[in-house]
Amino acid sequence: MIKAGIVGGTGYTGVELLRILLVHPQVQVSVVTSRSDAGQRVDHIYPSLRGYTEVVFTSPDVQQLSTCDVVFFATPNGTAMTMAADLLKNGVKVIDLSADFRIKDVQEWQKWYGMEHASPELIASAVYGLPEINREQIKQASLIACPGCYPTAVQLGFLPLLENAAVDSSQLIADVKSGVSGAGRKAELASLMSEAGESFKAYAVAGHRHLPEIRQGLANIVGQPVGLTFVPHLTPMIRGIHATLYARLSKSIDLQSLYQQRYQHEAFVDVLPAGSHADTRNVRGSNRCQIAVHQPQGGDTVVILSVIDNLVKGASGQAVQAMNLLFDLPETVGLQQVALYP
Amino acid sequence: MIKAGIVGGTGYTGVELLRILLVHPQVQVSVVTSRSDAGQRVDHIYPSLRGYTEVVFTSPDVQQLSTCDVVFFATPNGTAMTMAADLLKNGVKVIDLSADFRIKDVQEWQKWYGMEHASPELIASAVYGLPEINREQIKQASLIACPGCYPTAVQLGFLPLLENAAVDSSQLIADVKSGVSGAGRKAELASLMSEAGESFKAYAVAGHRHLPEIRQGLANIVGQPVGLTFVPHLTPMIRGIHATLYARLSKSIDLQSLYQQRYQHEAFVDVLPAGSHADTRNVRGSNRCQIAVHQPQGGDTVVILSVIDNLVKGASGQAVQAMNLLFDLPETVGLQQVALYP
Amino acid sequence: MIKAGIVGGTGYTGVELLRILLVHPQVQVSVVTSRSDAGQRVDHIYPSLRGYTEVVFTSPDVQQLSTCDVVFFATPNGTAMTMAADLLKNGVKVIDLSADFRIKDVQEWQKWYGMEHASPELIASAVYGLPEINREQIKQASLIACPGCYPTAVQLGFLPLLENAAVDSSQLIADVKSGVSGAGRKAELASLMSEAGESFKAYAVAGHRHLPEIRQGLANIVGQPVGLTFVPHLTPMIRGIHATLYARLSKSIDLQSLYQQRYQHEAFVDVLPAGSHADTRNVRGSNRCQIAVHQPQGGDTVVILSVIDNLVKGASGQAVQAMNLLFDLPETVGLQQVALYP
Amino acid sequence: MIKAGIVGGTGYTGVELLRILLVHPQVQVSVVTSRSDAGQRVDHIYPSLRGYTEVVFTSPDVQQLSTCDVVFFATPNGTAMTMAADLLKNGVKVIDLSADFRIKDVQEWQKWYGMEHASPELIASAVYGLPEINREQIKQASLIACPGCYPTAVQLGFLPLLENAAVDSSQLIADVKSGVSGAGRKAELASLMSEAGESFKAYAVAGHRHLPEIRQGLANIVGQPVGLTFVPHLTPMIRGIHATLYARLSKSIDLQSLYQQRYQHEAFVDVLPAGSHADTRNVRGSNRCQIAVHQPQGGDTVVILSVIDNLVKGASGQAVQAMNLLFDLPETVGLQQVALYP
Repeated sequence: MIKAGIVGGTGYTGVELLRILLVHPQVQVSVVTSRSDAGQRVDHIYPSLRGYTEVVFTSPDVQQLSTCDVVFFATPNGTAMTMAADLLKNGVKVIDLSADFRIKDVQEWQKWYGMEHASPELIASAVYGLPEINREQIKQASLIACPGCYPTAVQLGFLPLLENAAVDSSQLIADVKSGVSGAGRKAELASLMSEAGESFKAYAVAGHRHLPEIRQGLANIVGQPVGLTFVPHLTPMIRGIHATLYARLSKSIDLQSLYQQRYQHEAFVDVLPAGSHADTRNVRGSNRCQIAVHQPQGGDTVVILSVIDNLVKGASGQAVQAMNLLFDLPETVGLQQVALYP
Repeated sequence: MIKAGIVGGTGYTGVELLRILLVHPQVQVSVVTSRSDAGQRVDHIYPSLRGYTEVVFTSPDVQQLSTCDVVFFATPNGTAMTMAADLLKNGVKVIDLSADFRIKDVQEWQKWYGMEHASPELIASAVYGLPEINREQIKQASLIACPGCYPTAVQLGFLPLLENAAVDSSQLIADVKSGVSGAGRKAELASLMSEAGESFKAYAVAGHRHLPEIRQGLANIVGQPVGLTFVPHLTPMIRGIHATLYARLSKSIDLQSLYQQRYQHEAFVDVLPAGSHADTRNVRGSNRCQIAVHQPQGGDTVVILSVIDNLVKGASGQAVQAMNLLFDLPETVGLQQVALYP
Repeated sequence: MIKAGIVGGTGYTGVELLRILLVHPQVQVSVVTSRSDAGQRVDHIYPSLRGYTEVVFTSPDVQQLSTCDVVFFATPNGTAMTMAADLLKNGVKVIDLSADFRIKDVQEWQKWYGMEHASPELIASAVYGLPEINREQIKQASLIACPGCYPTAVQLGFLPLLENAAVDSSQLIADVKSGVSGAGRKAELASLMSEAGESFKAYAVAGHRHLPEIRQGLANIVGQPVGLTFVPHLTPMIRGIHATLYARLSKSIDLQSLYQQRYQHEAFVDVLPAGSHADTRNVRGSNRCQIAVHQPQGGDTVVILSVIDNLVKGASGQAVQAMNLLFDLPETVGLQQVALYP
Repeated sequence: MIKAGIVGGTGYTGVELLRILLVHPQVQVSVVTSRSDAGQRVDHIYPSLRGYTEVVFTSPDVQQLSTCDVVFFATPNGTAMTMAADLLKNGVKVIDLSADFRIKDVQEWQKWYGMEHASPELIASAVYGLPEINREQIKQASLIACPGCYPTAVQLGFLPLLENAAVDSSQLIADVKSGVSGAGRKAELASLMSEAGESFKAYAVAGHRHLPEIRQGLANIVGQPVGLTFVPHLTPMIRGIHATLYARLSKSIDLQSLYQQRYQHEAFVDVLPAGSHADTRNVRGSNRCQIAVHQPQGGDTVVILSVIDNLVKGASGQAVQAMNLLFDLPETVGLQQVALYP
């Protein structure tokens, strides 16, 4: 059994890790930290977990966490970077769901995240945890930087086009819609049901923190910088991300085959039949990305529809997928739950 | 492996059976019928099931279904009663999620369901599939009549009070609220999101079909007829039932202990700590009933809060729980998924 | 033109007052206060109001407010009681939407609201602003205590039964469901869409602050204390309250006629035809209470369904209705908007 | 008083016309037709209208409708074209909310709508009812073709850019999200709350009927054909459309000023301050279009956010706006209701 710890167990990615790991056949969750709820039973705060665990929240402590084989950080940005070095020194694998180690350019990171990086020396060795791109590196990694939710949906959607230089990479558009759980479990006015319910809006059009991450990922695929317009939106549902991606074709190609071939061996990327539309409900609670490929009216604009559950393939499920790789388990173990439809 | 068939695979209880059974370690789903979708792959209609099954919908056929060990009826009322006898003759276990075999008094059934019963001779041998009451009979049964969603939440909520004659059983009130999936996957105006969304209403106050079923169940516990006012409501969410039950205490008793003791060995009934409120999100997608017990201001009115997911413990999960008992499997196998929160 | 001021313009009852008053033909909104947003234009915070007002939020100031003919308090409990005396002295009418002056028994108020009352001497003269009961007193009042949202729906629902001594008033049950806007515009975890959306729960079963207010109102009708069990619930929608009321008949009576006659001259209480169910969507955004009357299976339990929009008839609309009475305007002026369906 | 008739009073645009017209000070609604509900009172089907009208649904009849000054068609496509000629002959103004007279090219219309046009001779004289473009023609018209909901949001959003040749009109993208009421009041599986709730999807990516209408409108502005990719999406809310529009700048220009100047005299188009995001809740129930203008990271891609209520500015409100122009009334009369927030 893998002994796992979770730092920051009271956010949505934390409780989602618990939902997955508590029934994962190879994992024992032994430490769950929360400064605010230390001393309380985890299942007291989350009655959905009653009967699955008797763990009590503790304050984060490197020594205690070092009894684990792997520690997940489900914390706000800025926490993992202060603790990762010590854990790594103690031989613990670190899987960070926050943004601390995602951006290779530390100046860029500091600009977008508005703080000084506490462990810039670790950034180079951190492996970006998108298995569909980085599977082999993940297996060898000690420190994994899990992709953000928007970046996962957008990168998986653009990947086959960019790998094959099939589109003009200087004019990419990602119009992406997220459910409200993406804003986290924080008491903020804008996330109230009375504010976010029954309404739809774009936000952060001037620049969202996931923009540099997506740009970096796409540039890595292409081998040079890309031109990307990224507009995130808030949609009145709890879980789900739907990316609608636009690009201009630069050569004639069978798009459906391109996508099917690229992802034929991927357990968690499902290319829908030609003519389909992807629907977030069909991946709700599952670790899947479903993708549909369109070329409206046979024109030169490609439209890719890419959906994930932001808390699973966009966060905690993907983190467990990386953990499976790291510990040489079958990649799908603990992640085979069917989506909750309806 | 148990070979299972599903008649009526295109309703919500049908697809929910598939969600559970396709990852059940002891079951192989070999036949799924649907008159309207015969010839189509199941995962074409339900993209959430892609990768989990290659079964094609067929028209219901007794011979084909008789190759199964067990057949689930996830059909509208009036179908199971026409096929059950033949299947039973062929040695197939039948688990009916519709109402055909729930009511022992065939006249009463015919009055509420507005049709003649096609197999009245089978009613007596049908076992009401509520394991918390009928566990031993279920193990021996050939034909199981799964309880309705409202009846499950209400009976589990009242059970300890009535078994202990702790309340006046002539004045029971069940004010119950259901998510819209309870209305089924039928194209009806009242179930449109524009109609049912952002609105709340009671319906069928004059008399709902689940009333005689609940009355029969409660009377069986008490040993005599009960007086029950049952008001169902539609609440703007997809899954979940919340029963708020009112009764007048007829003796002094420690209610919290009463409930905890009654359900201490039940895997799927969870009595919350004193002072708690049950929340449907904490059982969404799980086979659990969570119950909270209150005695407001120490008065003589007991208030019981009982929540389930109408499609799981209120239908398909409960049916699989019965199947587990029937085939001598651990009762919880295939049903241990944690609720999907948030 | 009536010059109106609003203290606490940034909560939902405040912005709802603005929605109604800014197009009220006899009112000019001249002062809107908000400590947190002082200095900002009202329509900057609420873009729905762009073009309807150029008012800037100011800090609450008795002198400035005394230039108004009427001041509405849309503040948290505990604010109106500190400013009302000064305003009244300056000849300003005060309409309080908070709970400060609703409860006649100051000890009871202090117990439930957990603070000392700052103006106990004003309580006796405050008129409870439910026009269907207190119309004449409201016309003569200087200080009006607007009813809470739950109390409005419950009192209007029980009123005809209790005035006619048609039920046992010692065993009343009010099972009431509210949309989430009832919790106000406050950054609280429990009101997040990820928490309150797609879920249903009861809360405060042990005792809610509206209990003593409802009890007082019902006792006034009956002429003696009543026995009431009141269970509030949170339903996943933004606006609307649905009260399901239960009582035991103590005499034979034509219930439908009783209700129709009692409310035949009331502009804002609409008794639905026999057999109807009330639906909150049909009063969304309107100042109406719609009521349906049932006697299931001809038994001795009456079931009353009473719906309002918690922010209109349950708060700001009712406050404007009281203002109309106070200033001798037609009671319906500014309040004739049709409900927003769908 | 203008005598108005409504053909097709039982759909959402029909009941929305009633919501607006029944409190419009210059209109009397004298005829409302519905084949399915003929003989029933309008307020029996729509309890929200109780007290506002005593009209009874009748079967559509040209003679009866000819007693009206104006007849609105809130019917499915294909009905208005069979009755308009007779009504026009009788001197009745016709305002068609369906698509029958929107497309000038009858071949194109027949291709997209799959039927033969019954009155091709009327198409030329029909005026496209978008007042912000066609105000003067509307005033003189007899037959008005009201724009579709998507076309309204998209055209108002692109208009200032295209009028000023500020962008490359061969590469326009409209990523548009609609609430579910846009699908109409029809019993269809895909519109069930269990299907459309808590989920997000694109649809009709291969080609939606509003595509030729938008193309025609944009081409009229530019003076030549445009290149447009239009992707409609379904978002889990009832009312509202949010268009996110992308175009590549072809010259340097102050975008904020451009929009403010273009719309400064428009009562129903509101350009938000620089840096704002438009939110559908702020126009819910109102006849407004709110627009925000962005140029992310100062690049050459313009992003326009344009929101309307699909049933008001996208249908019935816009129809009444046209009627006001037609009858020489102030354009805003009957349309000044503030949006319903929250």
